[in-house]
Amino acid sequence: MAQQERAIRTRQKILVVAAGMFDEVGYEATKITDILERAGLTKGALYFHFSSKEELAQAVLAAQVDALPPIPPQELKLQEALDTAQLLTCLLQRKTGDPIIQGSVRLTVDQGSSKDGLDRRVPMRAWIDYNRHFFGEARLNGELLPHVDVESLSWTFTGAFTGVQVLSSIMTDREDMPERISALYRGLMPSIAVPAVLARLDFSPERGVAVYEESMKLREQRSAASAE
Amino acid sequence: MAQQERAIRTRQKILVVAAGMFDEVGYEATKITDILERAGLTKGALYFHFSSKEELAQAVLAAQVDALPPIPPQELKLQEALDTAQLLTCLLQRKTGDPIIQGSVRLTVDQGSSKDGLDRRVPMRAWIDYNRHFFGEARLNGELLPHVDVESLSWTFTGAFTGVQVLSSIMTDREDMPERISALYRGLMPSIAVPAVLARLDFSPERGVAVYEESMKLREQRSAASAE
Repeated sequence: MAQQERAIRTRQKILVVAAGMFDEVGYEATKITDILERAGLTKGALYFHFSSKEELAQAVLAAQVDALPPIPPQELKLQEALDTAQLLTCLLQRKTGDPIIQGSVRLTVDQGSSKDGLDRRVPMRAWIDYNRHFFGEARLNGELLPHVDVESLSWTFTGAFTGVQVLSSIMTDREDMPERISALYRGLMPSIAVPAVLARLDFSPERGVAVYEESMKLREQRSAASAE
Repeated sequence: MAQQERAIRTRQKILVVAAGMFDEVGYEATKITDILERAGLTKGALYFHFSSKEELAQAVLAAQVDALPPIPPQELKLQEALDTAQLLTCLLQRKTGDPIIQGSVRLTVDQGSSKDGLDRRVPMRAWIDYNRHFFGEARLNGELLPHVDVESLSWTFTGAFTGVQVLSSIMTDREDMPERISALYRGLMPSIAVPAVLARLDFSPERGVAVYEESMKLREQRSAASAE
């Protein structure tokens, strides 16, 4: 294994372990020494990649959106938007969870101390951009009602998703999240989708698991292709 | 001043001071000694009311919904629901803020430690109940479309409001919250309100300040009436 590749793997390992700890106990209570112990690394190896806990947490925040696996392409962009929300829901569950997304989401939502220096706008801006891209394509496809403001919409979906996640996490440890996300999208889509598109969207909460499995396959295929 | 009344005032003062500290630095970083110093109270005075920081925080969580001043009555219940959201937005702003609501909202959303023993479901359940009550009345008034599931709706609005608040807090220190809440309600209301009601709802973000002022007057009038 080339030295550069080894460095990339070590960096990724540190991110995953740190994200797991941030998810479990939050930013303040996470100690660098605990991350080292759990990752089986020396101080030197970690400081080669990250100069402080703050820098490490900021890297976990920055990795949030990129940790999303590829979305299975659909004819309707609004279906892809819906699928992304259900996929993200799967990635926040205990069994099918992605540690980077879980830890990063907690870092984002926990208000923390004003002294911690973390910029929680980074992942939020990335989600707003992500949604803007989707809804912009949906507009080009003629899926959106003419009055819809794509910019405002991107904020509404990012915010509303965040809150449904927070509520579901508090009330049911995210068990009811697929159903609640489905209800949210059923509530918002009629204001933005043209009727013919609305009638073709699949809102069912069960769809999330199928999207997740397909998405994981796509990721494996792509990483195999890039390894060749 | 009767002894009982003094005790009630002291308890309220402790709650307000503690909520302010929870809002500023979070639960973990708040020290009982700092609360005592800021409230100008002895340990004995505080422990007469609350046996621990945990009990105090739980009381702040429990007081969240009750800290809401009276909502000015409107002909349309859905307008009252919208007004409540904009009123709450005012109460979360720096200038017009209510310390109990601000501190309690942070305690609710911060995930905290699993060992802190705080039950964050208490305020969330109270908001869901609150919304269920509103939407139930809207149904009796004939304001809701026939297919609407009031229970599911109460969860969606509670969750979505929470998230728009979190996002606005991260991105603009809640400055854009009136506008974002307005956009959220414009997005959700068409799925639930009958058209004749929808056409009469005032979604403007500026409405919040007027509702806030009227609400404060109502509270003063009621507390004056109960003092007589």
